[in-house]
Amino acid sequence: MSGVDFDASDLKVIAFDVFGTVVDWHSGIAAEAESALPGVDGAAFALAWRAGYQPAMKAVMERIAAGEGGFTLLDELHLSMLEQVLHDFSLADRLDAAAKRDLSRAWHRLPAWPDSVAGLTRLKKKFTICTLSNGNIGLLTEMAKRAGLPWDCVLSAEVFKAYKPDPRTYLGVAGVFDATPGQVMLAAAHHDDLAAARTCGLKTAYIERPHEFGRARPKDVSPQPDNNLHARDINELADLLGC
Amino acid sequence: MSGVDFDASDLKVIAFDVFGTVVDWHSGIAAEAESALPGVDGAAFALAWRAGYQPAMKAVMERIAAGEGGFTLLDELHLSMLEQVLHDFSLADRLDAAAKRDLSRAWHRLPAWPDSVAGLTRLKKKFTICTLSNGNIGLLTEMAKRAGLPWDCVLSAEVFKAYKPDPRTYLGVAGVFDATPGQVMLAAAHHDDLAAARTCGLKTAYIERPHEFGRARPKDVSPQPDNNLHARDINELADLLGC
Repeated sequence: MSGVDFDASDLKVIAFDVFGTVVDWHSGIAAEAESALPGVDGAAFALAWRAGYQPAMKAVMERIAAGEGGFTLLDELHLSMLEQVLHDFSLADRLDAAAKRDLSRAWHRLPAWPDSVAGLTRLKKKFTICTLSNGNIGLLTEMAKRAGLPWDCVLSAEVFKAYKPDPRTYLGVAGVFDATPGQVMLAAAHHDDLAAARTCGLKTAYIERPHEFGRARPKDVSPQPDNNLHARDINELADLLGC
Repeated sequence: MSGVDFDASDLKVIAFDVFGTVVDWHSGIAAEAESALPGVDGAAFALAWRAGYQPAMKAVMERIAAGEGGFTLLDELHLSMLEQVLHDFSLADRLDAAAKRDLSRAWHRLPAWPDSVAGLTRLKKKFTICTLSNGNIGLLTEMAKRAGLPWDCVLSAEVFKAYKPDPRTYLGVAGVFDATPGQVMLAAAHHDDLAAARTCGLKTAYIERPHEFGRARPKDVSPQPDNNLHARDINELADLLGC
């Protein structure tokens, strides 16, 4: 949709945000919640669970900054967030510990958006493609295996022992591939993630995901001029980059 | 060749040593050395370069243990080892800095053994397959991309900030995949690597690579009884594991 003036000749690596950008967490979590908890409003449950993410991540980062805690895997945060959502939905007694653990791993089993596998496969021919997610390596690997996501490499907050938007994550991708920040592009459906990457010198591509929060709650996907590229989906990103 | 009594039903992850086990460093380095340095004895050059590895790694680990240094990427060690080999071969003035750097990256471009891609592709259908190498992530990723190695995930000393045979590397693989050590198998062409993994509770598979040091110097590939499996190559490992 935009980016006709962007020169990709120096670009080596495209790092992808994952939740919402490559996979459809809302549909995936809603379906698993309805299966594990018959009668529940899966869409509302998914939104409530995801809404716990920012506060949980903020709390972990504050504990780390205060020297009171270490890096925590997202799997563990998903489980504690699930406990809270079950409590809020008055469903705490519906699942035993094993069932809670299994449902917390629904984030490993999210479906790709329909264009993701085809778009990534095209981009992989010309660039190194990797994840850059706050999800842990095991989560991202199992997700890729199930959904067929053809990553060259799974990078994660777990590798850098820092969470996005910490600069160590964005600059860490460049370091891993012995590239300059400007040779790395972050592709994401979230402007705040892209803005943080841009501050570190990365190139940025916005991917429209109007139904990230469900078809009932369309998201504003208007372009922001600071991004180098703006694409409807990952196939269009491949078009824009000449793949 | 052996392992008929091994029960793989609980196995989740197979981690592979890479240099010598999955790729043929001797042929690859010999060919690149002969190309970059016409007239050089490529086989001897490759052996000398690789011979620098254990001392260089030992020196880094001693510096880390003494609190005098941090984790160092294998790319950097390969470059400094190359400087030494060029000096020893009286070739120090034959390459400028850019050519030295390029030749040092020959370790990114090593060819797979003929069975590696097919064997890994079979194993990947049933298990999670990953690297566990002292090579850095960027090196292993570029190698996989060029050689078509279908890893689910690239794990490295760089992820664990410790080098094999440090237990943090072997136990780190189990931690990443939320598995017990006994649910992880290390596959390697080196008995010392396998012995260290076994001490941590991992399962082990020895892969014969009689020509790791070149056809002129066949290696003893006799079975050792402590390994759970012993396979001629990665295709036979897939046979033994019912893939």
